[in-house]
Amino acid sequence: MKSKTLPWIFTASCPSLIGTVDVVTRYMAEAENYIDEIHSFDDRESGLFFIRIEFFPPNDGFSDATFTEKFSSRAAEFDMTWELTAPNHKPKVAIMVSKYDHCLNDLLYRFRTGQLNIDVTVIISNHPDLEELAKWHGIPYYHLPITAETKLEQEAKVRELIEQYDTELVVLARYMQVLSPSMCEYLDGRAINIHHSLLPGFKGARPYHQAWEKGVKMVGATAHYVNNDLDEGPIITQGIQTVNHAHFPEDLVAKGQDIERVTLFNAVKYHVEKRVFLNGKRTVVFGG
Amino acid sequence: MKSKTLPWIFTASCPSLIGTVDVVTRYMAEAENYIDEIHSFDDRESGLFFIRIEFFPPNDGFSDATFTEKFSSRAAEFDMTWELTAPNHKPKVAIMVSKYDHCLNDLLYRFRTGQLNIDVTVIISNHPDLEELAKWHGIPYYHLPITAETKLEQEAKVRELIEQYDTELVVLARYMQVLSPSMCEYLDGRAINIHHSLLPGFKGARPYHQAWEKGVKMVGATAHYVNNDLDEGPIITQGIQTVNHAHFPEDLVAKGQDIERVTLFNAVKYHVEKRVFLNGKRTVVFGG
Amino acid sequence: MKSKTLPWIFTASCPSLIGTVDVVTRYMAEAENYIDEIHSFDDRESGLFFIRIEFFPPNDGFSDATFTEKFSSRAAEFDMTWELTAPNHKPKVAIMVSKYDHCLNDLLYRFRTGQLNIDVTVIISNHPDLEELAKWHGIPYYHLPITAETKLEQEAKVRELIEQYDTELVVLARYMQVLSPSMCEYLDGRAINIHHSLLPGFKGARPYHQAWEKGVKMVGATAHYVNNDLDEGPIITQGIQTVNHAHFPEDLVAKGQDIERVTLFNAVKYHVEKRVFLNGKRTVVFGG
Amino acid sequence: MKSKTLPWIFTASCPSLIGTVDVVTRYMAEAENYIDEIHSFDDRESGLFFIRIEFFPPNDGFSDATFTEKFSSRAAEFDMTWELTAPNHKPKVAIMVSKYDHCLNDLLYRFRTGQLNIDVTVIISNHPDLEELAKWHGIPYYHLPITAETKLEQEAKVRELIEQYDTELVVLARYMQVLSPSMCEYLDGRAINIHHSLLPGFKGARPYHQAWEKGVKMVGATAHYVNNDLDEGPIITQGIQTVNHAHFPEDLVAKGQDIERVTLFNAVKYHVEKRVFLNGKRTVVFGG
Repeated sequence: MKSKTLPWIFTASCPSLIGTVDVVTRYMAEAENYIDEIHSFDDRESGLFFIRIEFFPPNDGFSDATFTEKFSSRAAEFDMTWELTAPNHKPKVAIMVSKYDHCLNDLLYRFRTGQLNIDVTVIISNHPDLEELAKWHGIPYYHLPITAETKLEQEAKVRELIEQYDTELVVLARYMQVLSPSMCEYLDGRAINIHHSLLPGFKGARPYHQAWEKGVKMVGATAHYVNNDLDEGPIITQGIQTVNHAHFPEDLVAKGQDIERVTLFNAVKYHVEKRVFLNGKRTVVFGG
Repeated sequence: MKSKTLPWIFTASCPSLIGTVDVVTRYMAEAENYIDEIHSFDDRESGLFFIRIEFFPPNDGFSDATFTEKFSSRAAEFDMTWELTAPNHKPKVAIMVSKYDHCLNDLLYRFRTGQLNIDVTVIISNHPDLEELAKWHGIPYYHLPITAETKLEQEAKVRELIEQYDTELVVLARYMQVLSPSMCEYLDGRAINIHHSLLPGFKGARPYHQAWEKGVKMVGATAHYVNNDLDEGPIITQGIQTVNHAHFPEDLVAKGQDIERVTLFNAVKYHVEKRVFLNGKRTVVFGG
Repeated sequence: MKSKTLPWIFTASCPSLIGTVDVVTRYMAEAENYIDEIHSFDDRESGLFFIRIEFFPPNDGFSDATFTEKFSSRAAEFDMTWELTAPNHKPKVAIMVSKYDHCLNDLLYRFRTGQLNIDVTVIISNHPDLEELAKWHGIPYYHLPITAETKLEQEAKVRELIEQYDTELVVLARYMQVLSPSMCEYLDGRAINIHHSLLPGFKGARPYHQAWEKGVKMVGATAHYVNNDLDEGPIITQGIQTVNHAHFPEDLVAKGQDIERVTLFNAVKYHVEKRVFLNGKRTVVFGG
Repeated sequence: MKSKTLPWIFTASCPSLIGTVDVVTRYMAEAENYIDEIHSFDDRESGLFFIRIEFFPPNDGFSDATFTEKFSSRAAEFDMTWELTAPNHKPKVAIMVSKYDHCLNDLLYRFRTGQLNIDVTVIISNHPDLEELAKWHGIPYYHLPITAETKLEQEAKVRELIEQYDTELVVLARYMQVLSPSMCEYLDGRAINIHHSLLPGFKGARPYHQAWEKGVKMVGATAHYVNNDLDEGPIITQGIQTVNHAHFPEDLVAKGQDIERVTLFNAVKYHVEKRVFLNGKRTVVFGG
């Protein structure tokens, strides 16, 4: 059985027009790139087109520069935003946490074992609690305490770290702090948050306690991109777990944590594999 | 392989006290009733105790009257509300519908094939559309149109039918009308509604369209008892279905209908099997 | 909100080669067909390429004949098998049943309400039991009893009916008869069966009883294409349901029926929407 | 909101008879133990009765010895096997592994955070690979290599460790070795194994590769007690994950690992919470 070698990934989006697919696939054929998988979708509501292609370059190799040189002008005709992702690309990821470690532990496990093709370069927390876990994985850990008064100052330091570590993606793995509008804007489209409810139900604080009061029979988690509207960023994926009358709020918390970590992992995986596209307030997720 | 004969069901609830189980099980042993299954639960928050027992009487038969005579005084000591349900008891059910037939069709199928141990005695609708379906199953169908002006008048007729048909349970199988407060009170605890969202998300009208706007990745349905607070009655059970970016609002509606009918069926089944207990604004559901 | 008009569907498969996508999408662009959605997949194990495209023709209409005339020679260069499906195409479906009606009832409901874009033209059974149900839906019902001795003779009559009704797809909705090898061959690739287990576990008869004996905690159903190897045809989709110690074999049967009907519906839907491709003993299912 | 204090747990089983519940609950009432939750089940096939009770002793404390003294003779009349589990009881657990660490990592995380009320006292492996992980958690790790020739010898050493560490439960967290019959007998009823398929489908080696060959659309995992029959011990719980045509065997392995670890965790949790009862070749699992 042949092993699964990783493909190059091409992703693009542009306004809907006849020929949007052709301009891409024709070039791929001319350049003798072998297409392994295509997903395309055209959203008739937003009038936007999205495409994701996995391909293998010819055996004599592949030049990013050549692709760009030859394809750019064609793409420009369609006002197309596009991106190439190399098989060996490991995005640099900063993880932000508070005291809960279930999401961090899961992400680090998958980073360590290669299940997530990422490079966790820095962990930032407003608490010192999870430093040991970071240390064991050999990842620098920064403890930046925060208060209402020092929020902007602390966020400025967070930004510095994000830049110092050349961060491509920020993962809020139960960071538990409401970010300032300027910080949200700074992270727009490149930060994933996990909210511990099936949004839009139970926004805000203590969602499991809210859920218990309502007597729900299911709890959920939502992974979404950060934007300015609290717990309202574009949803990437959601997960649920059934519960019953014998579950107290603390049981809901425990059950929810299992869903949170899987849901956040899935969202990061989809993002890193270039499966997620922003489509206004919603997302397109191919093959998720 | 022995066939599964149906048991008698005993259900009770009362304030939490030592001896609440003993008073029941001791009598069962004395009366030589063979206990097949017990579920009990004590809610430390509400201070209420709930128990459900499946049992088989001795071979020389079982007298409801004797049970009542001998057990009542013991139960009274614990301020216990209790009920016996015979294996051959088929509750008389009235189904209320509008134009959507997916829930009605499912309930009638399960009634017809004996999967639901109920007797559907009457179907009431504010539209004439589903009369054929009712007729094929040999069930009387009443078309009672409704307008804002005639609501109370129409509801009075509905009540008359509910009483005329000696109704034990009313099922709102996508009835699509907001009931008046007095009607809600009249139906309190004996009417089950299906709401087409995972409450408390997306209350009110057109929940699938709301869900689509939010770009959710899951849609759900909630079966609950009717009470005065719109879409806020105690939840019996919930169901979900994953969706994706390629699903338009009408796809969400279609996918949701499959969840609605299963969720409503489950709720009716649990209710009829005496598995559901009201516990303030929440429910206890045994073995659901 | 715009309504979802149905697209034309183009499907094709051929040996894996550079240019297989381009030959299709280039023609689509030239013919001014607007591509709404593409899924393609290249199976490195089998060396086969599969593609499914939803598209909208230009406003001045679409000619099947022109498409064929212009595209055929291009397709031939890639040894491509391809097919066009019109938005208004309703495949003629024959349903075969025995006595169980849960799958039939579900398929007819979805046919009647338009959830399945099919035309159920004939129902064939080895028992008379389900004639009423067929009649209410206005569909001819043929009762063709079968014994070990008359199997081939009966199957010959079934074939005649399949041809007389111009059948495109045969659905074995719990037909409960093992087909003869020649009948299997006759139906190859155009008949879908529902098996009441999660194949390959519990092949053959009384799978729920086998499952109960093993004490499994989940039961399942498998929809697959018919081929010569009993319960071994290429799997289209599968469904499961959790069970527990309190479920007797007859409860497993009841719980399983809910999964069977949904699983069979899904398989028929995927087939009719041209999402399923045979890939040796396995299938490719796009967007299922 | 009151915190959830842990209850005492009483479990018992015996042949089915009238009075089996009463003998327990009457004593509980007399001893002023407050019953929080009961599950009982009577298996009409095996003629066995099972009961699990969560209770809180009176405020002036609880004496194990008194319970035993007073209850034993009553239990003996019903030939009842019974057990008391204290709220502070943490069973000593030995974990056996090979090279895969996904299950070990998950169990250690839940041990470390208190999600599993166990005391992992020793980790035994036939490979040295996972020593670092054990060390970080402060748990002794024994590397006992094994070959066909040294199997019995190695198993003897494993037994010594199991006894030296006073082990109550052995968890085979992907140990990947077929145990000898004598070892199986030694572990009977106190060892849980995780098999990476939905048994009884795909017994034996490389089940994900078998599953891929069959083109299944779901993979699963089964946690079961060890007995002499390879992969045939009584099933405690099972989990599943959907897969599709784009998943290669190695993807199935990765997806399966997520199910394996959750399924194994659930089984260990049910076992430790005394929810699982052996019932011939099957199990009874209360509230799982």
